[in-house]
Amino acid sequence: MTLPFANPGDLIQALSTPLALVDEDRMETNIHRVQSYMDRHGLAFRPHIKTHKIPAIAALQVKAGAKGINCQKVTEAEVFADAGFEDILITFNIIGPEKLDRLYALNTRISGLKVVADSAATVEGLARRFSPDRPLMVLVECDTGGGRCGVQTPQEAAALALHIAASDGLDFGGLMTYPKPDSAEAVEAFLASTVARLKADGVECAIVTNGGSPSLFDAHLVPSATEHRAGTYVYNDRSMVRAGHCSVDDCAMTILATVVSRPTPDRAILDAGSKALTSDLLGFSDYGLILEYPEAVITGLSEEHGTVDLSRSTGKRPEIGEKIRIIPNHTCVVSNLQDVMTFHRNGVVTRVEPVAARGLVW
Amino acid sequence: MTLPFANPGDLIQALSTPLALVDEDRMETNIHRVQSYMDRHGLAFRPHIKTHKIPAIAALQVKAGAKGINCQKVTEAEVFADAGFEDILITFNIIGPEKLDRLYALNTRISGLKVVADSAATVEGLARRFSPDRPLMVLVECDTGGGRCGVQTPQEAAALALHIAASDGLDFGGLMTYPKPDSAEAVEAFLASTVARLKADGVECAIVTNGGSPSLFDAHLVPSATEHRAGTYVYNDRSMVRAGHCSVDDCAMTILATVVSRPTPDRAILDAGSKALTSDLLGFSDYGLILEYPEAVITGLSEEHGTVDLSRSTGKRPEIGEKIRIIPNHTCVVSNLQDVMTFHRNGVVTRVEPVAARGLVW
Repeated sequence: MTLPFANPGDLIQALSTPLALVDEDRMETNIHRVQSYMDRHGLAFRPHIKTHKIPAIAALQVKAGAKGINCQKVTEAEVFADAGFEDILITFNIIGPEKLDRLYALNTRISGLKVVADSAATVEGLARRFSPDRPLMVLVECDTGGGRCGVQTPQEAAALALHIAASDGLDFGGLMTYPKPDSAEAVEAFLASTVARLKADGVECAIVTNGGSPSLFDAHLVPSATEHRAGTYVYNDRSMVRAGHCSVDDCAMTILATVVSRPTPDRAILDAGSKALTSDLLGFSDYGLILEYPEAVITGLSEEHGTVDLSRSTGKRPEIGEKIRIIPNHTCVVSNLQDVMTFHRNGVVTRVEPVAARGLVW
Repeated sequence: MTLPFANPGDLIQALSTPLALVDEDRMETNIHRVQSYMDRHGLAFRPHIKTHKIPAIAALQVKAGAKGINCQKVTEAEVFADAGFEDILITFNIIGPEKLDRLYALNTRISGLKVVADSAATVEGLARRFSPDRPLMVLVECDTGGGRCGVQTPQEAAALALHIAASDGLDFGGLMTYPKPDSAEAVEAFLASTVARLKADGVECAIVTNGGSPSLFDAHLVPSATEHRAGTYVYNDRSMVRAGHCSVDDCAMTILATVVSRPTPDRAILDAGSKALTSDLLGFSDYGLILEYPEAVITGLSEEHGTVDLSRSTGKRPEIGEKIRIIPNHTCVVSNLQDVMTFHRNGVVTRVEPVAARGLVW
């Protein structure tokens, strides 16, 4: 099958749709803006690769000053280790013999592998698989209010840290949290208390890693943290605009789509559905922002159709065959649907990169 | 990278997670049940391949009596043409030079290619690309209330049909609709009126194709239709149970997942997030049914985490490391996330099939 992938020099408006595009100029600006913020505040920065899943983009982030990368799965980390990355933090409880075997193999290949754990069960599974000749660094995941994984109190965090430190095949690496937005004070209180408890026991937290795009520019309000992790900033999206972190003009990713039907004066149908944009509302009531028709509302998606309500449009309305561009609600999940990502500058294709860590379900 | 794919004979409970599984016995029962219904009512049946995206499964559907298949994109149809399928209806307006070129090439390769159109603009684009030596069959898409694509009235449908019939490179093939649920009467009225108008003009509708899983067992209430299209029934899912089309025991697809965290007595975290289950709520307020813990509620998904509320659980609660199985809200979108699908009978792996038409965004 011949794929309609773009080639350098092509005009993006001539490309077959739907197609995810990334503006290289905007992406570079995003990378440098966030790295400068972290540098200014003396925080190490660890981009989460889930947003792009492309080693060449992670290389740009590291070149700009990032200390390492953040992956969510062993399979993702394998892709980036293959591409030469050494400092990889996997922020997930690794459980089960197959995953532990892969993690063990990965730890023999790269020097800076780290994982997190939030339970004795996870720590004991890791401890059984690893040994002192090549120990694995493990951080304690703390639930500072995010409501996902993580130990619930500084007491529990300190106890689990001591459990890790006492395990032969494991090195205790510090603390990790994925906080809820606008909660810097609570995050700091939890982390500072845990660090102090461990210090009293003679245990240092080499890394205290705070995270999340929603709290990106509050990172300096958590002085106990030594580093921050974030992914979405690299492309930005509608959720980042809503959070006040960027403007629409900072959104590097757009979905090029074609108007394929105009059944009524108030309805347009796009060839971009949930397979191009995903059903991820991320708190919005519609499925993306159409740049050329900001009054148009993408009210529904089926797999291959986007339904657009034009009833609020006061000016020109899109015609059949017309191409439009959409800023997605959430870039990370869009990347996961793409086999390749097409990059451009000023509407001219610069390169097409395989989304190397796409679709790693397991 | 070594993938943790299953091999025939493996026990599914031993497989690495998250992993999508299909029960072959249930799938076969689903295929035969729907084909028998169609046979009983003298309706041709055209399964939509979007649910499985696997030629070997479409072959089972055709072997059971399906007359052909339904695809949504040219790229999907190419995959199934490569696998030997000839009777393929693409229910989409095909627009743009790249797609028209691919459609043209496909029409030289297989004998039963058909597409739909709902506008003069689409018909004229097709007519410019095709020629009388190898004409393309085109059906008129009718919006009988579904509110997506389609001409709005029988008058418009008949006019567009005559436009197609008068176009040199095109053959008029009939009518197509994707109706809203529980609207058989309106669908029949629209289709019957259009057929009658065209008959008065001396134009026959060889195919009148009705569709949709929500209206699957109402197909016989639309006597003007010659065939029905449906996809989801092959695996079934939570939305089909809600629609009353099947029971939980008829759902062939499950997602095997592992409990990776139990941060609080009322919270469990699964390793299945939106990359395994998708964010497609399809009208539900939660993200799937956990078979082993039906009182547990999957309240939220991030890409790699599923958050489960156990507060309503009266009995045993899941433990870290425990594997559970989830019936997804919507099977089709789950298939699109999988590079392979693992099939089993009674919990023993029978085969692993590449999801050949997965991820065809363009």
